[in-house]
Amino acid sequence: MNQDSAGRLVERLRSWVADAPPGTRLPSSRALVAQHGVSPVTVHKAVQHLVAQGLVESRPGVGTFTLTAPVPRTADLAWQTAALGARPALLPGLASPQRSGRPDAVELRGGYPDPALLPERLVRAALARASRGDAAVQRMPPAGLPELRAWFAREAGRHARPGVTPPGERDALVVAGLQGALGSVFRTLVGSGGALVIESPTYWGALLAAAQTGVRLVPVPSGPDGPDPDVVDHALATSGARAFYAQPTFANPTGGRWSEETGRAVLAAVRRHGCFLVEDDWAHDLAIDVDPRPLVGHDDDGHVVYLRTLTKSVSPALRVGAIVARGPARDRILADRAAQTMYVSGVLQAAALDVVTQPGWARHLRTLRAGLRVRRDELLEALTTHAPEVEVAHRPVGGIHLWLRLPDGTDPAEVVRRCEQQDVLLAAGDEWFPAEPTGPYLRAGFAGADRDRFAEAAQVLGAVVREVATAR
Amino acid sequence: MNQDSAGRLVERLRSWVADAPPGTRLPSSRALVAQHGVSPVTVHKAVQHLVAQGLVESRPGVGTFTLTAPVPRTADLAWQTAALGARPALLPGLASPQRSGRPDAVELRGGYPDPALLPERLVRAALARASRGDAAVQRMPPAGLPELRAWFAREAGRHARPGVTPPGERDALVVAGLQGALGSVFRTLVGSGGALVIESPTYWGALLAAAQTGVRLVPVPSGPDGPDPDVVDHALATSGARAFYAQPTFANPTGGRWSEETGRAVLAAVRRHGCFLVEDDWAHDLAIDVDPRPLVGHDDDGHVVYLRTLTKSVSPALRVGAIVARGPARDRILADRAAQTMYVSGVLQAAALDVVTQPGWARHLRTLRAGLRVRRDELLEALTTHAPEVEVAHRPVGGIHLWLRLPDGTDPAEVVRRCEQQDVLLAAGDEWFPAEPTGPYLRAGFAGADRDRFAEAAQVLGAVVREVATAR
Repeated sequence: MNQDSAGRLVERLRSWVADAPPGTRLPSSRALVAQHGVSPVTVHKAVQHLVAQGLVESRPGVGTFTLTAPVPRTADLAWQTAALGARPALLPGLASPQRSGRPDAVELRGGYPDPALLPERLVRAALARASRGDAAVQRMPPAGLPELRAWFAREAGRHARPGVTPPGERDALVVAGLQGALGSVFRTLVGSGGALVIESPTYWGALLAAAQTGVRLVPVPSGPDGPDPDVVDHALATSGARAFYAQPTFANPTGGRWSEETGRAVLAAVRRHGCFLVEDDWAHDLAIDVDPRPLVGHDDDGHVVYLRTLTKSVSPALRVGAIVARGPARDRILADRAAQTMYVSGVLQAAALDVVTQPGWARHLRTLRAGLRVRRDELLEALTTHAPEVEVAHRPVGGIHLWLRLPDGTDPAEVVRRCEQQDVLLAAGDEWFPAEPTGPYLRAGFAGADRDRFAEAAQVLGAVVREVATAR
Repeated sequence: MNQDSAGRLVERLRSWVADAPPGTRLPSSRALVAQHGVSPVTVHKAVQHLVAQGLVESRPGVGTFTLTAPVPRTADLAWQTAALGARPALLPGLASPQRSGRPDAVELRGGYPDPALLPERLVRAALARASRGDAAVQRMPPAGLPELRAWFAREAGRHARPGVTPPGERDALVVAGLQGALGSVFRTLVGSGGALVIESPTYWGALLAAAQTGVRLVPVPSGPDGPDPDVVDHALATSGARAFYAQPTFANPTGGRWSEETGRAVLAAVRRHGCFLVEDDWAHDLAIDVDPRPLVGHDDDGHVVYLRTLTKSVSPALRVGAIVARGPARDRILADRAAQTMYVSGVLQAAALDVVTQPGWARHLRTLRAGLRVRRDELLEALTTHAPEVEVAHRPVGGIHLWLRLPDGTDPAEVVRRCEQQDVLLAAGDEWFPAEPTGPYLRAGFAGADRDRFAEAAQVLGAVVREVATAR
């Protein structure tokens, strides 16, 4: 709101309110229009903003008045230390991709694409239509809008191999983003104290969800081509794990992709041990060089519990995704979701369905792919030129991140701290490891930041890495 | 979609598709317009619907084709029995208020007001504005939209007693509905295995959240005037509980409201034992005879963790609420929420803020109150006239439910089953008790059903109760 005329008026009125005694009546709208040379709509917006911030109150038919400012006392919150106990080791606060930085910094931490890469027109039109439809005023069934469930099932079924029955509408459950879905899946399939095999490194949000649900992590090393199926087999056999959580396609953070053989071998191991593969296909729409071929297409016996999201390819405001699961697992996950969130807002579901069934959707996916390719290549080039000390572990074929290895002995946290002082925001790789990190890594997202500043960011990173190396 | 022309066209095309061999090309849009006498927009909508349902696929520039129907095989899902283990006792499936019934039934189970009681015009206009603003394309901070947080803090602060510092924007965290919030609060303040004191009967969603987070429930009996503060004091002292979950204002299911003295005494006990009061003010906007006076107004030392929602008074599609908490408790709850859901859709937050800062909001609350009063009184009268065997435990002064006691020895489940056969949907009271029910109760919601059918519903209930009594 700071850029527009209402924003400027808010700032002026805010200082006026600060100087006025409590209970003072604001000038009338007409007077404000005249005094500040703005439209009545602008005055209305600015006053509403002050009402929302609790600086003034409207008394209908009388006018708008400044509020009484209470004298704050010093609260006694120390008792909470005893009540809450020691700080939990695994949920210390917000993870680095969730923190916000200075608006003029180069944001390479984030997990979200630049708004310019997203189908803004489709999204706005879909939301406008949803605001006029039933979804704006009705409650949704816990499993989701039937047409949207059918769409997600069909998407998963597109990859069904010959002879495999694709999932149906009933097998798809709509969720509000994948983070809560991970919690439900871990709680339902594994449960507190149960073992969950997991790739290392892997998505920090999955590590958080595991910590929240109290599952015991059994990490297996994974790289650009996925884990060694024999190691997975051994981990499943010895841990008694009920599930293996993995990102076979465009893994976060490495950008890797399992080979067809790895996928088949892991799935065979999962079947042999009578457990689940939780396939997190978070980057399905973020392919760059190759098309996604999710493993859910190999399975109709309910071994694969498949996760898909639209948040990153449609809009961060349309937090809509789906869990595809079959049999009793599906029923239990639904009961858990319903107990967690009741249902997902119908407006978001209707708008998401609208976007993905427009003719413009396929076009958007092509544009997005081209945009991600340019950004990936530009950041790679900038790093090669200006930060040759940093090794790009793998040229990602999809997703939105580069996984960077620093020279041995470099402290990633120190590099991140010094870069941040120069307005370049990166994430230390440690957050992606379920155990001790196996090396000094950084994660750099290429989808969110200003492309024109990739070179500047790489220069800062290169200089900081050299500086930290010298200081050792 | 069944009522309109697109819906009729969908039905016709669906049977056409069912008869056509896979891969058959649909008639062109122009041909469909001519054949069915509908507009091009209607054809477009109908075809989109078939695409979403996976019955046809669009090949841009070529046409629309029927899809290959896969031959389903019989899946082997029996292995899941061993993998999942015995059915969890506490999350057996969907609770009765979450189940959907026949559309022509009298729906007295639900926890949501009739759309006619909600501010549909405000909601649609707010969503339309949100679809044009930044919120449609931007990610939100984990704690929520600052202006909306300020509004929730101010609302809680309106009830601050003299000398108590009201909460600020920082103390309010936006959540997507209260169900997930309860989970986060229980997990954060109590933790798995920890003790939580809770009213009995109380909200089934809180019992579910407690089961999911593994907290140990310590029930205290509660009625129309709240619990006995001495019993609460004793429960806190002997259980070592870290929190007391309660609905002091318009409790679900009883519609009760704690007296001022009960509130003060319970708060004193909570302070004495160094623990939290989780005040679930779910029905703040659903007052009927008296104004809500939440206990959060008595506290600025962070003992009260306060929950408020707009879902029931604005729109079921705007699942937006807030947790108001202070100190380290607030920080830990925020970290847990971020790990659970990352953030709440900006569209929903912007639209909710828009609705509650409109001049029409205060008017809506007055209309809603009047509407609830009429419905409560009409259902009470219908029951007195037609089902005198059923005792209304308490005339609720707010909220949306009646809590009905059946004659001793009557099985509520049997009454519910027989009423359902006659298209009257009620909920057995058992789901609201954390332990064995202390009597045969039913819960009847008066806000959602068709008012004109209250008499019919009461007649059915009365006849069923007499029938069941005779059968014993």
